[in-house]
Amino acid sequence: MIIVFAAGAPAEQIDHVIEKVEAHGLRTHVSRGETKTIVGCIGDERALANVGLRAMPGVEDVIPIQRPYKLASREFVDGRTVVRVGSVEIGGAGIAVVAGPCSVENLETLMDVAHAVRRGGADVLRGGAFKPRTSPYSFRGLGEPALEMLALARERTGLPVVTEVMDPRQVEQVSRFADMLQVGARNMQNFDLLGEVGQSELPVLLKRGLSARIKELLLAAEYVMSSGNMNVVLCERGIRTFETVTRNTLDISAVPVLKLETHLPVIVDPSHAAGRRDIIPDLAAAAIAVGADGVMVEVHPHPDEALSDGEQALSYEEFDRMVARLSDIAQVVGREVPVERFDST
Amino acid sequence: MIIVFAAGAPAEQIDHVIEKVEAHGLRTHVSRGETKTIVGCIGDERALANVGLRAMPGVEDVIPIQRPYKLASREFVDGRTVVRVGSVEIGGAGIAVVAGPCSVENLETLMDVAHAVRRGGADVLRGGAFKPRTSPYSFRGLGEPALEMLALARERTGLPVVTEVMDPRQVEQVSRFADMLQVGARNMQNFDLLGEVGQSELPVLLKRGLSARIKELLLAAEYVMSSGNMNVVLCERGIRTFETVTRNTLDISAVPVLKLETHLPVIVDPSHAAGRRDIIPDLAAAAIAVGADGVMVEVHPHPDEALSDGEQALSYEEFDRMVARLSDIAQVVGREVPVERFDST
Amino acid sequence: MIIVFAAGAPAEQIDHVIEKVEAHGLRTHVSRGETKTIVGCIGDERALANVGLRAMPGVEDVIPIQRPYKLASREFVDGRTVVRVGSVEIGGAGIAVVAGPCSVENLETLMDVAHAVRRGGADVLRGGAFKPRTSPYSFRGLGEPALEMLALARERTGLPVVTEVMDPRQVEQVSRFADMLQVGARNMQNFDLLGEVGQSELPVLLKRGLSARIKELLLAAEYVMSSGNMNVVLCERGIRTFETVTRNTLDISAVPVLKLETHLPVIVDPSHAAGRRDIIPDLAAAAIAVGADGVMVEVHPHPDEALSDGEQALSYEEFDRMVARLSDIAQVVGREVPVERFDST
Amino acid sequence: MIIVFAAGAPAEQIDHVIEKVEAHGLRTHVSRGETKTIVGCIGDERALANVGLRAMPGVEDVIPIQRPYKLASREFVDGRTVVRVGSVEIGGAGIAVVAGPCSVENLETLMDVAHAVRRGGADVLRGGAFKPRTSPYSFRGLGEPALEMLALARERTGLPVVTEVMDPRQVEQVSRFADMLQVGARNMQNFDLLGEVGQSELPVLLKRGLSARIKELLLAAEYVMSSGNMNVVLCERGIRTFETVTRNTLDISAVPVLKLETHLPVIVDPSHAAGRRDIIPDLAAAAIAVGADGVMVEVHPHPDEALSDGEQALSYEEFDRMVARLSDIAQVVGREVPVERFDST
Repeated sequence: MIIVFAAGAPAEQIDHVIEKVEAHGLRTHVSRGETKTIVGCIGDERALANVGLRAMPGVEDVIPIQRPYKLASREFVDGRTVVRVGSVEIGGAGIAVVAGPCSVENLETLMDVAHAVRRGGADVLRGGAFKPRTSPYSFRGLGEPALEMLALARERTGLPVVTEVMDPRQVEQVSRFADMLQVGARNMQNFDLLGEVGQSELPVLLKRGLSARIKELLLAAEYVMSSGNMNVVLCERGIRTFETVTRNTLDISAVPVLKLETHLPVIVDPSHAAGRRDIIPDLAAAAIAVGADGVMVEVHPHPDEALSDGEQALSYEEFDRMVARLSDIAQVVGREVPVERFDST
Repeated sequence: MIIVFAAGAPAEQIDHVIEKVEAHGLRTHVSRGETKTIVGCIGDERALANVGLRAMPGVEDVIPIQRPYKLASREFVDGRTVVRVGSVEIGGAGIAVVAGPCSVENLETLMDVAHAVRRGGADVLRGGAFKPRTSPYSFRGLGEPALEMLALARERTGLPVVTEVMDPRQVEQVSRFADMLQVGARNMQNFDLLGEVGQSELPVLLKRGLSARIKELLLAAEYVMSSGNMNVVLCERGIRTFETVTRNTLDISAVPVLKLETHLPVIVDPSHAAGRRDIIPDLAAAAIAVGADGVMVEVHPHPDEALSDGEQALSYEEFDRMVARLSDIAQVVGREVPVERFDST
Repeated sequence: MIIVFAAGAPAEQIDHVIEKVEAHGLRTHVSRGETKTIVGCIGDERALANVGLRAMPGVEDVIPIQRPYKLASREFVDGRTVVRVGSVEIGGAGIAVVAGPCSVENLETLMDVAHAVRRGGADVLRGGAFKPRTSPYSFRGLGEPALEMLALARERTGLPVVTEVMDPRQVEQVSRFADMLQVGARNMQNFDLLGEVGQSELPVLLKRGLSARIKELLLAAEYVMSSGNMNVVLCERGIRTFETVTRNTLDISAVPVLKLETHLPVIVDPSHAAGRRDIIPDLAAAAIAVGADGVMVEVHPHPDEALSDGEQALSYEEFDRMVARLSDIAQVVGREVPVERFDST
Repeated sequence: MIIVFAAGAPAEQIDHVIEKVEAHGLRTHVSRGETKTIVGCIGDERALANVGLRAMPGVEDVIPIQRPYKLASREFVDGRTVVRVGSVEIGGAGIAVVAGPCSVENLETLMDVAHAVRRGGADVLRGGAFKPRTSPYSFRGLGEPALEMLALARERTGLPVVTEVMDPRQVEQVSRFADMLQVGARNMQNFDLLGEVGQSELPVLLKRGLSARIKELLLAAEYVMSSGNMNVVLCERGIRTFETVTRNTLDISAVPVLKLETHLPVIVDPSHAAGRRDIIPDLAAAAIAVGADGVMVEVHPHPDEALSDGEQALSYEEFDRMVARLSDIAQVVGREVPVERFDST
């Protein structure tokens, strides 16, 4: 950590700050410039997390040098973390395709979609039982009956299941049915929920918040990991900007930056990023080319009859074509695509 | 709601959409342009909330005409809602000043601040018992002991107390001590929490999310109100933009726009918007001039020793000067400032 | 400037960087932390402006400590700069009101508006002769005939005139008619235009770009000033964010921050920020309360018949009421409002 | 265009608006809802561009239905426009690689880079003679001598040359040396410059502004095209958001959206988007996978000694590896990569 003092800050102010820093176990190194004095702090910066250095008289700026996350950083793990969801590996040699309806509407439709995405090449089935909706008047999910349907779909197709958990009180319930817990974008900084899924034995799919910086996404992962659960998959799903032709702006750069910063797997959700199905396969292709460990997309037999977000769901044919294209790109970027997953069931 | 069809959309597609709309109880009105056909839908648009019109073949755009919120809209209430917090009114003739430390650190400091802000002109005492922190390694609040201290501070100063609730499981506990429940910016779309505070008898202070549109803030209020609790105070506290000289960008326009859209009171939190104390009194002055019903600020006896957010806390002297300035402005914009609140206790 | 090296950067890389810095006349100060080495650079940082330190092997981050602007900074001038526009002072004891139509449409309307705003309390007349328009099919201004009309309006009302210059080739032409040159938001980083107005003897009204940081606005002013023209007035006019209820988001915090950073006057344009007339007077009130040196608004006799931006123009009555409100606020924030300007002419 | 009236708008207000619309040659279609009246306008909306409908009494909202650009829209051209730069085609079957130094520093370095990128697979040479720089104290380009060096580099390598023009007065001068005129991000709405390059016979590379919406980029292209020059290549180069790990946020979705909206070619500049060289090849790969017609990157023999933007320049080896990777991806997405361009010269 570097502390920059205002031009003309008196010696007593500087000394007072130095004392404070050293009282927390760090050493200091003073550098007097022509107009400003700078103090470097040597040691574990996290010890200063609760010290209001910025508010101390004479201090102009405080510049962190160390990363604020530790368990999520690449220094902590040798190599890359591979997260297992049922029998599927995310973050390994292959790429993972997570697919399914936005929300679970009824058993028949869910089964139809589950079999279709299984045939088309999906590795994991997604489907919402509890749905975060901007309006209280929108369809908010079937709840436990949907969880039961998802478990049945897993039984019949062999696909492990990921579904969203919105409330700390739902974690135990959802865990009885799902193979992976999803924390949605709106809950990325719901810290009690992060702590709760951090105590689960199931892997966690953590979606980036609409206005979350990369650093904040990694700190949210750190919440889960510091609660004991190291199996976190990060998901870029678009950020909120001024552009309106897409629902959100897919921050494709987040993928290679995260790969440099963390050992955790990273996937991309082009459906929520785009909010329009016509460009989803293109964005999924970009995701694999840029180095993502997989994609997550919404699929529906009749997108125009979906109870939620139909405008961003792919039809079966669109999904099949997309997976074929992703496989081609995966090969040229050096990722395996297991052929057996194109067998029909 | 207006449905715009793509140029050349065949009649069957248009008819199919019309059928769907009418099946939900709305009437339609077809207008054929030179290249595009437009269908106006007459009736309650909320009936179409779960119909994926946008995904239907031939549809190019769907444009809502009605507001998606009802209870929060000005049509619903005659005049303006005045929310009572203990004996204090927010949204009435006067302006309200909410002040206190960012987090409750110990009884002595809290009492000192509580008496100081009482003397300086505060109407409501704020203080965090449960703190949302970006990093799991930061101070996250004292929890229930802090709630007890807040209750004691109320007893001694007469100031009603507002404090944040982060987890639906805390609502009952916090309600035993507080006079008003705060839902923080990061939880503005924590829909289960909104539902839970919606069942409380205490008034709710709802802070705008970092990337929430005005419409979404009003829909979050609608969640609380449609759960039964009509006593919601909205709080503008800065949105996330590209600018870095302030922690967030205070969206001052949100105040007059909200006044046009809703009957609920609106206050401003310049502390979190700025993230730097040197401009907080200026922003508070702007808030009252623009028509806000009050401000909420952080105050600390020694900002440089605060356990959280000291860089955005005012000293006692700064607070006193700020309130005096707000009173002057309040008078010229036609708001009452009760003189008795400047009596010392 | 502080240079942070990556953990484990070898001594040769560090030495190579130090050599480079010292070759540009700065001294260095090395601080070895537990994992990272930090080098402080002492001297004039601008000497390093063209040295690609960030790209040098071993370098992880380069953190500027000094401000990149000099002429615009408060250190450069003792006190505050007062800019004279004709006989009007901007940045002095009083507040300035700049008003007029968005674009000059014809002589009759212009004269009518000019007299009306003169009566209502305006100090400076604004009006566009060359209009930047997003679409090539929109009305782009009358050009020189409009300049002639503006000069005539000045003659008849005594109000000095500010108008926009969009092209370096127009500076000479516009200068023959105007008292102040406006550089619009879209041209804030049109560096050739900045250089050209920097050689003019007329004062410059420099509007902040839609996505310009405060630092960039000050560097744009530095372009003008380093070309020889020290009479620059800065104008906050809203930035582009995700919010859509207003055309732009007025960054009210920019005013006090600029007051801390620069000696130049700062005014606010609520018309372009809001893009809707119903909240313009409120935003203007906030601007004066927060410490702005003036406001600039659009006024039109029949806003619904304006050839451009009618939806953000005030009627005469709205303008009169707004000025009265601003005068009240100006007084309580300690700014003079010359009474004589409310005399009718 | 659809005009929505406020609830309770009286018939006279509605009639007045209808009259106005019809006076401009459009027909109207009135649809009375339960609370609001809606008027559809049938005909060419551009006739209403200068009518302040939004400001008329009773009007609540005005919703455009037609695209505001015409020449740039896909309806205007059958198929896709292929732009020729010297002997190179952009927008045809193959992908184009534009490469070179950020700024031209001296003849020796330029020649070295030109030959290196030629060998590595570049199709077009880029290099700045006039550089837009945020600070007036940064290196701003060599001007005409740099243009002469670029022309010499073209002669020796056979690569056509693209370079930026910042000032309408430079267009003639730059045209004597270059094969393509670049309009930079900061000048995307420098309308006089757009008009000037619109009268040139050279093709134009138009970069998206930092805060420009897709629609505005297309309207900027429309400025060029409506001035007579149909040879415009669009370039996505990142937009400004709250994220700070990259200099800008590459809006990868812009590519497929532009492909749906316009017949013009679209390329991507990952160098300026990222502002850091470590992720540039990944972003370039994403660009080709998503359907871009090419990429533009900065290359320098010694990035750490570049006079500008060295931190975002690729070394020769990095460039060679990137082109090889792009070729592989181009093939799987169905784009040709002419083998002869990998011959050394």
